Amino acid sequence: MSPPPFHIVFALFPGLTHLDFTGPHAFLSRIPGAQVHVASLEGGELEAEGGLVFGRTERLADIPACDLLCVPGGVDATAAALVAPYVAEVRRLGLSARYVTSVCTGSLILGAAGLLEGRRAACHWAWRHLLPLFGATPDPGRVVRDGNVITGGGVTAGIDFALTVLAEVGGEDLAKTLQLGLEYAPAPPFDSGRPETAPAAILEAYKTRMAPMMPRREAEAREAAARLGRG
Amino acid sequence: MSPPPFHIVFALFPGLTHLDFTGPHAFLSRIPGAQVHVASLEGGELEAEGGLVFGRTERLADIPACDLLCVPGGVDATAAALVAPYVAEVRRLGLSARYVTSVCTGSLILGAAGLLEGRRAACHWAWRHLLPLFGATPDPGRVVRDGNVITGGGVTAGIDFALTVLAEVGGEDLAKTLQLGLEYAPAPPFDSGRPETAPAAILEAYKTRMAPMMPRREAEAREAAARLGRG
Repeated sequence: MSPPPFHIVFALFPGLTHLDFTGPHAFLSRIPGAQVHVASLEGGELEAEGGLVFGRTERLADIPACDLLCVPGGVDATAAALVAPYVAEVRRLGLSARYVTSVCTGSLILGAAGLLEGRRAACHWAWRHLLPLFGATPDPGRVVRDGNVITGGGVTAGIDFALTVLAEVGGEDLAKTLQLGLEYAPAPPFDSGRPETAPAAILEAYKTRMAPMMPRREAEAREAAARLGRG
Repeated sequence: MSPPPFHIVFALFPGLTHLDFTGPHAFLSRIPGAQVHVASLEGGELEAEGGLVFGRTERLADIPACDLLCVPGGVDATAAALVAPYVAEVRRLGLSARYVTSVCTGSLILGAAGLLEGRRAACHWAWRHLLPLFGATPDPGRVVRDGNVITGGGVTAGIDFALTVLAEVGGEDLAKTLQLGLEYAPAPPFDSGRPETAPAAILEAYKTRMAPMMPRREAEAREAAARLGRG
């Protein structure tokens, strides 16, 4: 007898950082019995950061419920957090999901949907300070679990996140088998992946590059929090 | 003055393992001046492994030339290696590209296109033994460079591959900046990503699961090699 379907919903929004989503998708879609819904507010084509286009996305409203909700991030996550019908769908699915999850700044969207109140959560390191706007406690972990909420850090953390979810949902043997199949034995040629290890000049240059966009993004996050009745 | 466009072509085929391509895409599309072409033989919509759909892919034939060609892999790579017009486009673009690259079993397609003769190359560990059919020397490295040919190992190796390419094309500072931005400080919860480190039972189970498909895939690779005038 085959296992019952395990419904996974990836709730995409325009401009998302696609690797936030495709990393976990490659692993989680291999769960035996997984039924994966790549979905968006409008359905159909959706353009991600870098111009990559996903086709035939489902409409979130057409999905009655799911076992696992995963919200990816991107620099446009705070804009998505202000799209009321999108946030409402994330909230609706999240309230009944067995697992409520995100990667990168997707946790800000979970927050805007009122799903992180009183929870510890991960986020991209440069955006983590915005989590308290939504009643969440920022956690610098790469993968953070608090009850049924599992959140990953920035972008590539989605792969470590996926292995953690796999072990929870399908057991460690499944996680290890897929790790072998997707040859996840990372060997970064540099050690610049965290602010704590990056060369100081690299970190400063990165912050300088991000600085012009942050006030607008922070204002969006505050507005999303205000709509929640916070702040 | 802005840098001249650096044309990157990802040559997709139906059924590809999407993370082979989206991992490098997330990094390489951030090269200043990069112009990224997500392309396929027919153009338009293309369905990857796991049902993920990419939309609006360009037609390979419409791209006159590129600076970097990247061919992803997947279990269907050997089938793609038998699609003569696809292989012809890979060959055409590869012959004039400054960098000829692949991730995972994409190296078998480079091989079928006659681009790996006498070269060392990486491949997914379970498929690496097929490289000699195309005159290439299998290299167990996660990222392997031989002249202008840079190849990555299985699936997630595409991220380490991308950082190597970034350092080459844009310098180490760019690579480190993007590593920080995409928070690539991997922390796998298990150490099962290579046959050398995976638990013996996991490795055996994986091989057993792959065994039924391998004879057909190996026959496809031999046929592709025969068309090259080898074997």
